[in-house]
Amino acid sequence: MGGLRLGLAQINCTVGDMGGNTAKIKHCIEQTEARGVDILCFPELAITGYPPEDLLFRPQFIKQNLDCVAQLARFSQLREQVLVVGFVDRKQQAIFNAAAVIHRGMVVGVYHKIILPNYGVFDEKRYFNWGSRLPIFNIQGIGVGVNICEDIWLREGPTQQLVQGGAQLIINISASPYHMGKWRERRQILSKQAQENKIWIAYNNLVGGQDELVFDGHGMIFDPQGEIIAGGRQFEEDLILADIAPAAAGLGYRWPTADNIIVPPSDNPLPKPPLDKCHPKMLHPEAEVYQALKLGLKDYVAKNGFSRVVIGLSGGIDSALTAVIARDALGRENLELVFMPSDYSSEASHRDARQLAHNLNAHFSVIPIQGLLVKYLESLQEPFAGLAPDVTEENLQARIRGNLLMALSNKHGWLVLATGNKSEMSVGYATLYGDMVGGFAVLKDVPKQLVYRLAEYRNQIKSGEIIPRNILEKEPTAELRHNQRDTDSLPAYDILDPIAEAYVEQDLDARQIQNLGYDKATVSRVIKMIDRSEYKRRQAPLVIKITPRAFGKDRRMPITNRFNHQ
Amino acid sequence: MGGLRLGLAQINCTVGDMGGNTAKIKHCIEQTEARGVDILCFPELAITGYPPEDLLFRPQFIKQNLDCVAQLARFSQLREQVLVVGFVDRKQQAIFNAAAVIHRGMVVGVYHKIILPNYGVFDEKRYFNWGSRLPIFNIQGIGVGVNICEDIWLREGPTQQLVQGGAQLIINISASPYHMGKWRERRQILSKQAQENKIWIAYNNLVGGQDELVFDGHGMIFDPQGEIIAGGRQFEEDLILADIAPAAAGLGYRWPTADNIIVPPSDNPLPKPPLDKCHPKMLHPEAEVYQALKLGLKDYVAKNGFSRVVIGLSGGIDSALTAVIARDALGRENLELVFMPSDYSSEASHRDARQLAHNLNAHFSVIPIQGLLVKYLESLQEPFAGLAPDVTEENLQARIRGNLLMALSNKHGWLVLATGNKSEMSVGYATLYGDMVGGFAVLKDVPKQLVYRLAEYRNQIKSGEIIPRNILEKEPTAELRHNQRDTDSLPAYDILDPIAEAYVEQDLDARQIQNLGYDKATVSRVIKMIDRSEYKRRQAPLVIKITPRAFGKDRRMPITNRFNHQ
Repeated sequence: MGGLRLGLAQINCTVGDMGGNTAKIKHCIEQTEARGVDILCFPELAITGYPPEDLLFRPQFIKQNLDCVAQLARFSQLREQVLVVGFVDRKQQAIFNAAAVIHRGMVVGVYHKIILPNYGVFDEKRYFNWGSRLPIFNIQGIGVGVNICEDIWLREGPTQQLVQGGAQLIINISASPYHMGKWRERRQILSKQAQENKIWIAYNNLVGGQDELVFDGHGMIFDPQGEIIAGGRQFEEDLILADIAPAAAGLGYRWPTADNIIVPPSDNPLPKPPLDKCHPKMLHPEAEVYQALKLGLKDYVAKNGFSRVVIGLSGGIDSALTAVIARDALGRENLELVFMPSDYSSEASHRDARQLAHNLNAHFSVIPIQGLLVKYLESLQEPFAGLAPDVTEENLQARIRGNLLMALSNKHGWLVLATGNKSEMSVGYATLYGDMVGGFAVLKDVPKQLVYRLAEYRNQIKSGEIIPRNILEKEPTAELRHNQRDTDSLPAYDILDPIAEAYVEQDLDARQIQNLGYDKATVSRVIKMIDRSEYKRRQAPLVIKITPRAFGKDRRMPITNRFNHQ
Repeated sequence: MGGLRLGLAQINCTVGDMGGNTAKIKHCIEQTEARGVDILCFPELAITGYPPEDLLFRPQFIKQNLDCVAQLARFSQLREQVLVVGFVDRKQQAIFNAAAVIHRGMVVGVYHKIILPNYGVFDEKRYFNWGSRLPIFNIQGIGVGVNICEDIWLREGPTQQLVQGGAQLIINISASPYHMGKWRERRQILSKQAQENKIWIAYNNLVGGQDELVFDGHGMIFDPQGEIIAGGRQFEEDLILADIAPAAAGLGYRWPTADNIIVPPSDNPLPKPPLDKCHPKMLHPEAEVYQALKLGLKDYVAKNGFSRVVIGLSGGIDSALTAVIARDALGRENLELVFMPSDYSSEASHRDARQLAHNLNAHFSVIPIQGLLVKYLESLQEPFAGLAPDVTEENLQARIRGNLLMALSNKHGWLVLATGNKSEMSVGYATLYGDMVGGFAVLKDVPKQLVYRLAEYRNQIKSGEIIPRNILEKEPTAELRHNQRDTDSLPAYDILDPIAEAYVEQDLDARQIQNLGYDKATVSRVIKMIDRSEYKRRQAPLVIKITPRAFGKDRRMPITNRFNHQ
């Protein structure tokens, strides 16, 4: 017996586009038939897209998704492949995050996810009931267990129970959101599960951007020694193929459960063409983050029906990197760059912005704002009488720029990209309705120091620096008053970033952060700034999550909050 | 034996202000001693405030709250009262939504909430583990069970188990957020629970505003016939007292559980002064919503350290009602009203705005925006060349006003109140960064028709109409172009409001809404507008929830969403 040929279709689904997702699934089925694939697997909730959030409360949504499963069953009628497809199952009033096993026109079995994540960005207990059955599928004589995402992460959980039930191969379908280096964590856990349980594991992960999340694909197939025998690309659609030969692995085969479902072998098996070995290509850290941002932006733009974006260039590093990512994601023809100088803008900023636009070969325009600023100050003369200039006048400049970008957006249908980074967003060093304006904030989860590393990375991958060296080397400034520097208001970024990370991502308190070697007054100041700017973050545009805890649905802080973290 | 005197301290706690909340609890203890109260109860999570959200991930937060429980135990050392106090308990790594029963210096028992709500605005499964023990407290010979909020809502749940265990009185401590008429639902369920189980029920609910939620108090004590024997005020702090005499109720008394905790009676019982009967005052629907909005606003302003607010008056009903609520909540001296006319603003609007300010006796100023609008259009002449005026020019006006309000806010430390209503917010008939600017949106969960009813209600409660009649009677218009009417862009509000409610709050689909008697094209148009404006709502200011499903954390919709609801 030659064993099973497994196929993992690592596809990019769109939330709510059940027709489109189902069409894509059918297309994969057609494409893989000639390659002798016995079992073809799709990601978690492939039919609805992930996460569907409160769309799950709409009975019509559940029904459409069930109709798609029925459609796929019909589509499989005259085919030999076994399909494993993520969908939403319904039993009476309850719904389940489910996997359908489909063969020759029939849904031969359904698995309901048991471990429902309800932390971080996840709200699965808001929607789903948990499953209680662990069917084992006898596919061409091999015991196959199916489970979903979180189910395979536990040392003692549904995976071990499936193994006890006789599973020799576990197919895990996932929608695991990206953060930096998470693939390493996944690989370690899965390899260990394969090795300890002496099973084959086929891990298929969703790919694509969905609001603040990026799913990074990177599916993997492990042998019972815990070795990767095949792997998919990160951040791209891919088909991962491997031949599973359990006889060679010397596994026993038991059938102790009542839940066995037997899928008979094909009467007329297709010949199996030989497979190339495919191994996942590991990206280095900056390349990985860069790809995540590119995919997150590209999918947000495309899936929401936009084509062009507009970015306000300041001459600084954040807007420069945002523009380069946008060019790489969307093409130069879909990029509009605007420089909006005031009297505080330096000649160097103008020159750097223009040089960047030139390097990107993108359309560049200049709209001066000084006249508007003067006009605002005239209008406000009476209510401001006798009061000294302060941050108000700085914010006004940022808000004039925000208004101009939104006017361009309204008139031309361009999406405005906000350019702020995570360091600024942490401490509230950003103007609400000003530089925070936008439909999407590409760098909002990228700390300033990583912004620099990404820019350097991008400059290195092709000959000729795309981001002008001066942008990388000048001291950060908002240019909202004369001789302003970020360090007038903030600690240096090599101090701010680790403090903010310790506080926001690791929940350390002031004393613990001081113990990392930071000055008490600085720690206290940064924490206060973070706490006090929650109201700004609540009205911020969507972010692309790249860290273990992003602002957004990953971190749910009250605005009204008198807790003294000091 | 005279039975127990119960006291429910219906207090307004602040999230994170554990020192302040504990001080308030101590103050209540001191105030009630002379009144012969045997058991004094506080709301759910009274020590931390509710909901603390991701503050619960901070070990320091949990520790401070545990210190407060210890402090209260010490405070109770020389006193006779039994205290029931909501706090966060910790066992190893797990935390629990808990009630401490404290007596004479000791925490004599702890109850862990069993039923954890994870729907609507609730995320309790994100944080808490559920309890598994049901201790019964023998307090002066009476079997007392304690449970928390949702625990008492189930027909077969912790309440029935406590009764089977011998409880004659259930003390339920709650933090139940307000929506219109919810008290009626609570009263029916609790009355039924009391009657069916033949027990006394003491229901204590939090009061106060916390971000988008208002807790409305309205605590109640029921006898075993299901009758209310005492009740607290809605939307105000209150002390609810009643004497419980289980002997008179003829209840048997069993002790089948191993979880009995005996609280001995006082050696020196204080004489009990006679109690006045207190019954909850039922408010009529508009009065109830009005009080909810007032309290929500008042607490947001005070708990976030603001004192004054600024509102842009348009001469229309929404800004007028917002201003009146703000005056009632904060006082006329804390109210700044600004009228910002363009060439499209009518003389009538100016007159009505001024008249309203006069009626409110609040400071009123005028900042014309026409010059700024002209200046913007000059600046945008080149990118707009050859393109006809459209919604861009309308949005610009709204955004100029937004900028002016934010400038006033920055310069003077005033909180900007947004004035949009739920109807507009549903269909996206609002300008992001324009009229949506603000730290708090008082009417964002109030549909337009209810805005009118609230205005009429407010005009009736005192002689002399506070909102000028013309504001109530003119046709709604945004005045962003000549002769504009809301009905140019929207169906009439008596059609829009019920369609939006059916879709947003009841999850009905297009066909079901048509079956309520609405035109197919209109239903389809409204649904499309609602779906497409999710991105605006994501950046909107906080709302005060008054309906069963508000925008905000109550409704979590993807922005990227291709589901066709039609």
